Amino acid sequence: MNKTRLCVMISALVLSTLAFAQDSVKPDDAIEYRQGLMTVIGWNFGPLGAMVKGKRSFDATEFARHAERIAAISDSVIEGFPKGSDKGSSERTAAKADIWNHWDDFQAKANDFHTQARLLADIAKANDEAKNKEQFKKVAETCKACHDKYKQKM
Amino acid sequence: MNKTRLCVMISALVLSTLAFAQDSVKPDDAIEYRQGLMTVIGWNFGPLGAMVKGKRSFDATEFARHAERIAAISDSVIEGFPKGSDKGSSERTAAKADIWNHWDDFQAKANDFHTQARLLADIAKANDEAKNKEQFKKVAETCKACHDKYKQKM
Repeated sequence: MNKTRLCVMISALVLSTLAFAQDSVKPDDAIEYRQGLMTVIGWNFGPLGAMVKGKRSFDATEFARHAERIAAISDSVIEGFPKGSDKGSSERTAAKADIWNHWDDFQAKANDFHTQARLLADIAKANDEAKNKEQFKKVAETCKACHDKYKQKM
Repeated sequence: MNKTRLCVMISALVLSTLAFAQDSVKPDDAIEYRQGLMTVIGWNFGPLGAMVKGKRSFDATEFARHAERIAAISDSVIEGFPKGSDKGSSERTAAKADIWNHWDDFQAKANDFHTQARLLADIAKANDEAKNKEQFKKVAETCKACHDKYKQKM
């Protein structure tokens, strides 16, 4: 690929993704991002839950792989909730406006998720099914704690 | 939280996420997942591109953080393209049907992205702005190579 084409391509990529520059995020972009993030987390959470509940046979490598992915993106929840993103122009959101009235608590809950998700990925390296199960439940509790308070039923 | 409530909560989580169990994925769920994945990748790609293009001052820690997130989920593209997901019932997709006619090539391109993204995260730990920039372009090239061939303009 010649230099000019590469520059044009990178510019296009940057322009299309600058929409997501966290210091000037449009509400619709933040909503789209956080919904995408939750979808990816859920996609990886599914196999873990299936193994924990015995709906799928335990596979230590698979468990660790999905747990690591969740951990890697678990600290990026909070950036999807900039001020003003309680409403979008074209995107609907399940986020309650209360988030921004209780920002410290919301941030603490987001941090809890990150902490427990990171622990799950670390524990999963030891291939101990019982310990994975115990820690999985702790992660699930952090999801529930935040969703119960700050997510509306759509 | 008592045991019964915890069990009910985990069941709900598993049921809602089993939709994403990769061995029986509905086309709409796969489409939603891969679009979420691309959104999250793009969200993290934006700050990197901005730094590479000089639109934002270079911050080694930030660069490494975003690069690591992309790397961590970069091997999960292919699972978002199960057979039959060229069309959804309610979800629109930009994926060309050609993907499934050229599966080996598509898989190779997805692997290229993963390889270069992993390298970017590793290189980013050395805090060398010039090397980051060089490797960022290689990652961007893998995105373009796949999109040019297999992504339609929506």
